[in-house]
Amino acid sequence: VLIDEGLELLDEDEAMRLLASSEVGRIGLTIAALPAIFPVNYRFVDGCIMFRTAPGSKLLAAANNTVVAFEVDDYHVEDRTGWSVLVVGPSELVRDVGVIDHVLDAELEPWVEGTRASVVRIRPGIVSGRRIVHGTPLVPGG
Amino acid sequence: VLIDEGLELLDEDEAMRLLASSEVGRIGLTIAALPAIFPVNYRFVDGCIMFRTAPGSKLLAAANNTVVAFEVDDYHVEDRTGWSVLVVGPSELVRDVGVIDHVLDAELEPWVEGTRASVVRIRPGIVSGRRIVHGTPLVPGG
Repeated sequence: VLIDEGLELLDEDEAMRLLASSEVGRIGLTIAALPAIFPVNYRFVDGCIMFRTAPGSKLLAAANNTVVAFEVDDYHVEDRTGWSVLVVGPSELVRDVGVIDHVLDAELEPWVEGTRASVVRIRPGIVSGRRIVHGTPLVPGG
Repeated sequence: VLIDEGLELLDEDEAMRLLASSEVGRIGLTIAALPAIFPVNYRFVDGCIMFRTAPGSKLLAAANNTVVAFEVDDYHVEDRTGWSVLVVGPSELVRDVGVIDHVLDAELEPWVEGTRASVVRIRPGIVSGRRIVHGTPLVPGG
């Protein structure tokens, strides 16, 4: 087990598995030269993060043709455990109708009322994951 | 109730209350010219977000003397409800021993094993909050 600043580093398979098993993540990007983080409900489809947003939304304008961060995590306050996965990669509006239909088939229904007709794809470039472990012997590394 | 792209906008008092009642948030910043998001356990002390990290950590280097995003949220997959609060503001290493002691008194114990002796403060500049609502009549605005 490799550790990085006290956290167990997850291997990429485990990080991908956690990405595929979650539904809410957070996109980190820059809007008007300021950093921002927005939660989105998403699906992991064909190795990419896909989420829906409204045409003309601030998020779509900021997330089209740029490099973004995307984070998924699960923490438990009671026992102070948890994990997080961080993806960094290019983000773009999906224009291929076949891909959009495929995403919609993945039951990526918008949680928010109103139209969310645009689909954004993040291609994972760098994937990393970390887990808090307690009482386990760890070997420094990473 | 004001809405912004289908989401109810929270007023600042409510956003601050949610910040004060949570313990895990996510900091969004740039590391080596790439966007990144890292979860931290934090406390809302004297109107600021405070968290601990290790001296010499990548996070501390990136979060000292810059403008960062900080996000807290709570989502429920079952009923597709939830809220998020986004803070944007300057982040800095706290050097005042009195303030550090005050933060430690706030029981901000590190979840991760090993030293987390440095305290970082984010001063909220811009605070916004959004909530998913279903079946409630909403008035466009915001």
